[in-house]
Amino acid sequence: MRYYNFTAEPSQSADDFFMNEAIKEAKIALSLDEVPIGAVIVSNGTIIGKGHNLTEQLNDVTAHAEMQAFTAAANYLGGKYLKGCTLYVTIEPCVMCAGASYWTQISRIVYGAKDEKRGFSLVKSMITHPKTEIVSGVKESDCALLIKNFFLSKRK
Amino acid sequence: MRYYNFTAEPSQSADDFFMNEAIKEAKIALSLDEVPIGAVIVSNGTIIGKGHNLTEQLNDVTAHAEMQAFTAAANYLGGKYLKGCTLYVTIEPCVMCAGASYWTQISRIVYGAKDEKRGFSLVKSMITHPKTEIVSGVKESDCALLIKNFFLSKRK
Repeated sequence: MRYYNFTAEPSQSADDFFMNEAIKEAKIALSLDEVPIGAVIVSNGTIIGKGHNLTEQLNDVTAHAEMQAFTAAANYLGGKYLKGCTLYVTIEPCVMCAGASYWTQISRIVYGAKDEKRGFSLVKSMITHPKTEIVSGVKESDCALLIKNFFLSKRK
Repeated sequence: MRYYNFTAEPSQSADDFFMNEAIKEAKIALSLDEVPIGAVIVSNGTIIGKGHNLTEQLNDVTAHAEMQAFTAAANYLGGKYLKGCTLYVTIEPCVMCAGASYWTQISRIVYGAKDEKRGFSLVKSMITHPKTEIVSGVKESDCALLIKNFFLSKRK
């Protein structure tokens, strides 16, 4: 795994930069015919963990992008907790992934598009850690379009 | 991993028998100085997946007993879904594990003792699959005592 430092274009915010990296991960999932969701975890401007949805490849419904990224980041840090880190994920985390984020004590979650059916914010109270800041809507349309097109292509 | 068939004593219910197997898993966690929680997954009277809490050993906050058991059972079955299966777990699943159970579509969850702080039933609505039956209180005091004694020993 390669780890990137933040080297944004002048016009680009750090959130946009890292959401683009998460979108790259989502596109790897797409290339594998997985539901295209990607995630990166950032500490001090450096990506320390990445993941993309692998539920089909691994035959494991728990193999969501965020779960892979949490485990990768903890391995990288050599500690269980992700205090001070930010999770960037293309789609709003589900209840499982939001529940996992609680245990990591991650400081910030930035997601692109809402998941209106299974997003954790539908059952928001007490799931994420009270110290975790939630940001949504970063590159929202790009993130949503990947999923929308994927399912449209399946229905053809 | 050894897989057991249900061969209960005449006085013993299947739920008690399999909760005892989950308790054995919890005791393995205890022997590793992990928070002692154990789980087994049963299909047609046979244990097809087991797990115990390994968050410290694996340095991974997502390594809960249930998560290990879900992955093991899916590997055993060669399919992602656990329809028709029962999860036996010594302590009420947290939000992460209950969220994972949704994706597995598991048919039944039997837990021993309630988790009053982080148990999923605190945010119950829509977390587990509507087809998943929940049973609690099986060997409740044994399951709770393992945890209580563990934390008491830590405070000494």
